[in-house]
Amino acid sequence: MVRRFFTSFKKLSNKDKRLVAAVKSIVGYKPFRLELFRLVTQHSSVAKTLPNGFRASNERLEYLGDAILGAVVADYLFKKYPFKDEGFLTEIRSRIVNRESLSLLAKKIGISQMLESDFSRSRYHFKSIYGDMMEAFIGAVYIDRGYKYCQKFIINKLLIPHFDLDEIIENNTNYKSILIEWSQKENKSIRFDIEDQKQEGSKKEFRAAIFVNSEKISKGAGLNKKKAEQNAAFKACRKLNLI
Amino acid sequence: MVRRFFTSFKKLSNKDKRLVAAVKSIVGYKPFRLELFRLVTQHSSVAKTLPNGFRASNERLEYLGDAILGAVVADYLFKKYPFKDEGFLTEIRSRIVNRESLSLLAKKIGISQMLESDFSRSRYHFKSIYGDMMEAFIGAVYIDRGYKYCQKFIINKLLIPHFDLDEIIENNTNYKSILIEWSQKENKSIRFDIEDQKQEGSKKEFRAAIFVNSEKISKGAGLNKKKAEQNAAFKACRKLNLI
Repeated sequence: MVRRFFTSFKKLSNKDKRLVAAVKSIVGYKPFRLELFRLVTQHSSVAKTLPNGFRASNERLEYLGDAILGAVVADYLFKKYPFKDEGFLTEIRSRIVNRESLSLLAKKIGISQMLESDFSRSRYHFKSIYGDMMEAFIGAVYIDRGYKYCQKFIINKLLIPHFDLDEIIENNTNYKSILIEWSQKENKSIRFDIEDQKQEGSKKEFRAAIFVNSEKISKGAGLNKKKAEQNAAFKACRKLNLI
Repeated sequence: MVRRFFTSFKKLSNKDKRLVAAVKSIVGYKPFRLELFRLVTQHSSVAKTLPNGFRASNERLEYLGDAILGAVVADYLFKKYPFKDEGFLTEIRSRIVNRESLSLLAKKIGISQMLESDFSRSRYHFKSIYGDMMEAFIGAVYIDRGYKYCQKFIINKLLIPHFDLDEIIENNTNYKSILIEWSQKENKSIRFDIEDQKQEGSKKEFRAAIFVNSEKISKGAGLNKKKAEQNAAFKACRKLNLI
C-alpha cells in the first residue's frame, strides 16, 4: 500500500485542515490519502469532470463501502450469534445496514457536518445523501487503511456505540400485519397503494397510502416499498388505536 | 484466532482425509478447522439437529461467504476500473456473483464433488445447491484463515482463472429489448409471462413464457424473474432469427 501522508500539516488549506481534524475525531487517525476523504463529500450532483471525461463523485466509494460494511456486519453477527440461522442474521443485518439508519448514524458521528462546510444545505433535499456519505466514508477508510483497520472502525466506533442489538432484535413489529389482522376481525376492506415514486439519480423514494373501506386513512414514505408501507401502516395503527 | 489443526492426519477417517485433500487441492492449504468444511456439504435438507435444537447446515456459512465474496469482488473491480462509475461496477459484479455462475464455478473447481461423496445426487435436484456450497466454502475459508487469505483465494483461484472480465463486459446483450424492438417494427403484440414458480426453502425458480400475437413461442427458467425472461427471450430471438 502506498502511503502518501502529507508531511506538512501547516501547508494544508484551512478546508483540508478541517477535513483532517474531522477524520481524526471520527476514526481516530489522520488520513494517509486525504483526497479519498475529499471525495466523500462530493455528491454526484456537484461532481467535477476530469480531463478524461470521468465525473469524480463519492458514488464509487459508496459502492465499495456498502460491500465492506455488509461483510463486516455479516461476520460480526455470524460470530456473535453462533446458534441463530441465516434468516435471523440476514434480517438483523438489514436492520443495521439500511439507508435510514446509516443517515442517522452519519448525523450522529458528524459525517454530515463534513458536507455542510463544503456545500449549501439546500442542494441536498434528498434524505439518502447522508447515508451515501456514511458508506463512502467507510469505503475511504477501507482503501486508506485496509480491511482489518476498517473492520475495527466499523465495530468499535459505529456498531457497538450506536446500535442496541437487543433492541433491534426485539423491535420486530410488523404494522402491516397488525392492520390486516384488524381488518379481517372487523370485516373491513383494506388496500395498500404505492402512490408515487420520486427518482433522483439511482435513488428512489416511495410513497404508500392505506385505504380502509375505500377511505384513505394514512400515508407514508420510505426508500423502498416495504418501508413506505410500514411507515403508513404504523400511522394507521396509531390512528385506529391498535398500538 | 484459535488454530485447532488436527495433529495426526493418520487418525482421520477416510472421509475426512478425502475432505482435507479436496480443500488442499482447491485452496492450497490443509484446513485448520476441518469441521467448517464438513459443514459446507451439509445442505439444510439433511441438517443434523444439535442438542440445543439448532440445525447445523451450511446456510450460515453461505450467508457469510456471500457477503465476503461481494466485498472482495467489489474491491477488485473498484481498483481494476478506476474510471468506471458505480453503475458499471455494480452490474459487472452481479454478473460474476450470481447463483448460476457460482454453481458453474463450484462444478469447475470440484466443490460439487465434495457433496457427491457424502450424499446421493438425487436429493439435490435443485440447481442452486452448488452455488450455495460455493458461497459456504468461501465463508469457511474466511473463518479459517481471515480476510486477507480469503481475498487472495477468491482473486487468484476463482476470479482470475475462471472469469473472463473482457467477455463479461462485452456480453451485455439484452434479448428482451431486441424482441420488443422487433415486435414494434413488425407491429406484433408481445407478452412476457411469469408462469410458474418453484420454491424450496428460501430458493425460488421462475419460469417465463413469451407470447407473440397470443401464440406461445418460447419459455425459459431462471433463479429470478429477469433471468427467466432473458432466457426465454434468448430462445425467442433464436427462433425468430433475430440473432
